[in-house]
Amino acid sequence: MFSDAALAIESSFIRDILAVSQQPNMISLAGGMPASELLPWQQLHAQIGKLSQADLQYSLTPGLPGLRAHIANVLVSDCDMSEHEVMVTTGSQQGLDLIARTLINKGDKVIVEAPTFLGALQTFQASEAELLSVATSEQGPDLVALEALLSEHEVKCIYLQPNFQNPTGFTYPLAVREQLAQMAVAHNVLIIEDDPYGALRYDGEALPSIYSFAPTHCVRLVSFSKTVAPGLRLGWLQANDAIQQQLTKFKQVADLHSSSLNQQLLLAFLQSDDYAQHIDTLLSVYAQRSNAMHDALTKYLGNAVSWEKPQGGMFYWLKLDSEQTWKSLFDQAIDKQVAYVPGAAFYTDQPAAQYARLSFSNVSEEKIEQGIQRLAQVLKG
Amino acid sequence: MFSDAALAIESSFIRDILAVSQQPNMISLAGGMPASELLPWQQLHAQIGKLSQADLQYSLTPGLPGLRAHIANVLVSDCDMSEHEVMVTTGSQQGLDLIARTLINKGDKVIVEAPTFLGALQTFQASEAELLSVATSEQGPDLVALEALLSEHEVKCIYLQPNFQNPTGFTYPLAVREQLAQMAVAHNVLIIEDDPYGALRYDGEALPSIYSFAPTHCVRLVSFSKTVAPGLRLGWLQANDAIQQQLTKFKQVADLHSSSLNQQLLLAFLQSDDYAQHIDTLLSVYAQRSNAMHDALTKYLGNAVSWEKPQGGMFYWLKLDSEQTWKSLFDQAIDKQVAYVPGAAFYTDQPAAQYARLSFSNVSEEKIEQGIQRLAQVLKG
Repeated sequence: MFSDAALAIESSFIRDILAVSQQPNMISLAGGMPASELLPWQQLHAQIGKLSQADLQYSLTPGLPGLRAHIANVLVSDCDMSEHEVMVTTGSQQGLDLIARTLINKGDKVIVEAPTFLGALQTFQASEAELLSVATSEQGPDLVALEALLSEHEVKCIYLQPNFQNPTGFTYPLAVREQLAQMAVAHNVLIIEDDPYGALRYDGEALPSIYSFAPTHCVRLVSFSKTVAPGLRLGWLQANDAIQQQLTKFKQVADLHSSSLNQQLLLAFLQSDDYAQHIDTLLSVYAQRSNAMHDALTKYLGNAVSWEKPQGGMFYWLKLDSEQTWKSLFDQAIDKQVAYVPGAAFYTDQPAAQYARLSFSNVSEEKIEQGIQRLAQVLKG
Repeated sequence: MFSDAALAIESSFIRDILAVSQQPNMISLAGGMPASELLPWQQLHAQIGKLSQADLQYSLTPGLPGLRAHIANVLVSDCDMSEHEVMVTTGSQQGLDLIARTLINKGDKVIVEAPTFLGALQTFQASEAELLSVATSEQGPDLVALEALLSEHEVKCIYLQPNFQNPTGFTYPLAVREQLAQMAVAHNVLIIEDDPYGALRYDGEALPSIYSFAPTHCVRLVSFSKTVAPGLRLGWLQANDAIQQQLTKFKQVADLHSSSLNQQLLLAFLQSDDYAQHIDTLLSVYAQRSNAMHDALTKYLGNAVSWEKPQGGMFYWLKLDSEQTWKSLFDQAIDKQVAYVPGAAFYTDQPAAQYARLSFSNVSEEKIEQGIQRLAQVLKG
């Protein structure tokens, strides 16, 4: 009865453990949610006077002109961009789905990092793509392996997350971004640059997007869920005219347009003085929580696991220095009331079972320390 | 570079003429928009105190439990339903897209009415379905022809709009609904019952849904865009557990969940005393506008066109009683500053060019009369 695509999508492990991770005394390091107490409801509420009846009517498929212009002119600072290169999406998850549907036929080859974002794996399963993977590290994807894959296969697109990657927290160096852009042009392949966390940098210098080096061969996806609020379901994508034209038809099919009310409310907030202050607060709290996680890991698990401290984003990628696996430890962790995501969920093949993803963004410093303490007890058995 | 599906979707004629139909002195009878001045901004604004910071966080994929329960227990009155049969969607266009993706493989056969909703044709093009069509009338789809198609072909699903169909305004009689439900069960085929206009009945008795007769073989799609506001991008679908399970995976891929803020705001409005009053106002204004269109057609075009007066919804389906076609008259109509949708847009094959769709919902009675007068001038040449 169901389509091949429906049967190909694996349910999300993270969504599946949502219920257990929300139990009352659980310390969940599993989710990738923004800090609930910092969600800017007061600031958005202050803008409601700028909304009107007209914001309840149908509106244009690619988004409110004012919001598209604000994104192109204010939020994107690493390249000159026209508002016509911007489409407002119903969260950046929708942007990913739209671009996948616009590009991919059943069996088309898509390169992803190993490990990579679980939601992207689901999206490419829904498009019935054949996934090839390339190992990634704190230096970005393995460029030699990537070049080999591009030479050997006819590849439709490459899915990459250059900033504070989910799940690893890794960030590509500048030179790697430039090389990736050159490779995309040389092989005439499209890079899908997923960048939900780029604005959450609390250490080091911001780096230009891959898009800024190869706008003809790149689509960039950005989310407002991490900087403003997931409940608005708004994000945007950057793409050239030819791609936008095809994307627009899928956007009509997907939901006609994103909520005009939410777009107008978001625009008012982005244009207010509160926005910069809100981002400052987010960065300072997340930096403290990242420090707290680093310190707790050092104190309680320093001899048992290894990690790279991220420069931004929401995640630590923990490697067990023993032969245990995070998957086999998961039930014990739930018994000890601490949740994480076993790393295997982020691989399309050959999962590296000694890794786990931990998030610090929606947990207080105190709970982070307690959570890591509990993890140390789990490891001791 | 682009997927076969992208190339298969035809751009929407209605969206394409949006710019021309919004020119200052144009009387547009083309769109299918709710009355702008009746959009309940004041009433929604009155509920904003019920929103909180928590409504900005990520939420559950199938929708807010309170809203799902309200839909199942209050809004659906023609059958006993559990809230688990309800999924909140980002407009009912998304519901249609989700069910198409969940069911249809490339080349699968889908039966549609001739004529039918343009957005449904686009959605099935995106799923690369093979479309078969069955003529429809004020008695609903031709059941003999439908039975023949079901016997001859392996059909995946049948797409139907039983209430105030878009574009014709036709409503299926009760007996036809029961027979359709029986046919779906007998042939083990799924009916997609699209019902965005059902709540907009201003004449005659409400009739039970096809879903109420065959919940195992039906998915029903309902919109809040016609009763509350398109700008919220909210609708719902009813489906059994097995289908919901597959749909949920596509909903995760499509946008994770619909805006939690908008869902909470909508729920507060639906639970308020203002809601019933708002629907009363809508029905009374739309009834007056429908009467105004009927009267103007009788007065100015009575000898040149024929139509059935609808019992609800937003549309008249006008048949030219000459050999002219509405498509050939379209440019002259635009010159005379009146817009409509030539009927050919609503057919997958063998378009009936003597039909046009006219909408009265977002036009004042005075403008309706002027618009029909202009149409009469166009017909005179």
